Amino acid sequence: MKQNKYDEPEFFAEYSRLPRSIHGLAAGLEWTTFQGLLPDLHDQRVLDLGCGFGWHCRYAREQGARTIVGVDISERMLEHARVTTRGSGIEYCRCAIEDINFSANEFDIVISSLALHYVEAFDLVCRKVYHCLASNSLFVFSVEHPIFTALPAQDWYYGPTGERLHWPVDNYQEEGRRQTNWLTDDVIKYHRTLATYVNTVIESGFWIKRLEEPKPAPELTDPGEKDELRRPLFLVIAAVKDE
Amino acid sequence: MKQNKYDEPEFFAEYSRLPRSIHGLAAGLEWTTFQGLLPDLHDQRVLDLGCGFGWHCRYAREQGARTIVGVDISERMLEHARVTTRGSGIEYCRCAIEDINFSANEFDIVISSLALHYVEAFDLVCRKVYHCLASNSLFVFSVEHPIFTALPAQDWYYGPTGERLHWPVDNYQEEGRRQTNWLTDDVIKYHRTLATYVNTVIESGFWIKRLEEPKPAPELTDPGEKDELRRPLFLVIAAVKDE
Repeated sequence: MKQNKYDEPEFFAEYSRLPRSIHGLAAGLEWTTFQGLLPDLHDQRVLDLGCGFGWHCRYAREQGARTIVGVDISERMLEHARVTTRGSGIEYCRCAIEDINFSANEFDIVISSLALHYVEAFDLVCRKVYHCLASNSLFVFSVEHPIFTALPAQDWYYGPTGERLHWPVDNYQEEGRRQTNWLTDDVIKYHRTLATYVNTVIESGFWIKRLEEPKPAPELTDPGEKDELRRPLFLVIAAVKDE
Repeated sequence: MKQNKYDEPEFFAEYSRLPRSIHGLAAGLEWTTFQGLLPDLHDQRVLDLGCGFGWHCRYAREQGARTIVGVDISERMLEHARVTTRGSGIEYCRCAIEDINFSANEFDIVISSLALHYVEAFDLVCRKVYHCLASNSLFVFSVEHPIFTALPAQDWYYGPTGERLHWPVDNYQEEGRRQTNWLTDDVIKYHRTLATYVNTVIESGFWIKRLEEPKPAPELTDPGEKDELRRPLFLVIAAVKDE
């Protein structure tokens, strides 16, 4: 099932209030790590799967990318992306990620930020990304960490006075659909184990260049951000098309 | 610090009572997965790091390995390995894993079963394994999963009537020494993130062939084993020396 939660007004409004929606890439815990895995984008042909508000597409353009295609299932997100993107050089396409149909060798890099945990057919996406990438090119993606997606509650376990006791894990090996309550009710995500993420990428023909579990900078003192040292929130993988 | 817990009588006695100590490889949840990652061992030169009672060494000999070296820090474990190994073909060496000093190209495969979470210098071990392996050869190892080693308690979180509520995760990003109480008090293990395991292997010159988080067979009905579907207990990595 391809849920298009971002086109629902209530969800869209909630999402628009997130720090990362207002302040962009730097407000995401994982951005520094993700950015560090990107090659020089100058003159590159870039595909962004699940481009949302277009922050990554605009970043690619700032870095001198030759062409940029941003794909998203949500018209509302793309509308916002188009409005906030001045000038040319970025093509926004409405399409579910698993429905992309690009030609072989059409891109020099494919990126995807926090979108693929909404996609059931991760293996299909990997095969399609492999197909449209040039040889020796990178696929860099971030997802919610399997430790974060295992339980639908996606929340800490609290003590009697409301303190965060620890992060609870359960049903880890049972992959599949999770009906979560992120921002609003009934947000469908797909839980996969870390092994499945890694092995699916490898089976699609890539080799793993780097795997990251981003954490806050050690100098951070904000208690909420410090809690991100307690559990892995995101998983980032950089893989190379081996051909 | 190189702790030699297995040479302490009380710990050794407790360890000897574990199902895997009595019944061997098949009693380990991870064995089927581990075995599936091994190549044909016929005529291979095999190194086993942390060989313990020698189960993996004897398995390699059954498969027709040419030479087998088993390394362990514990004299007591090696003594038991020697007593239970009939015939020749296996050399048991007392040595801390991080102190191995083999020649280049001395082995066709290096294996390590549930030993490397006792070793602080995982990067050093990876470099030494790379050095002594022949080109295009495999390093296959299992460790306690980072989700399992994060908290020193290494135990479920229980409800008021003693039921296992969930698996608690905390301090995940804080790597290093954990003073656990596995079998007896004061067993020192080293917690590393999954990213560190993967990236250290890659930085040492290997490419990741497969990453597994073994789980019980679906037909199992034993409640204890079924709980292993709730959290990942072990991590297994198969990596190829790329040269």
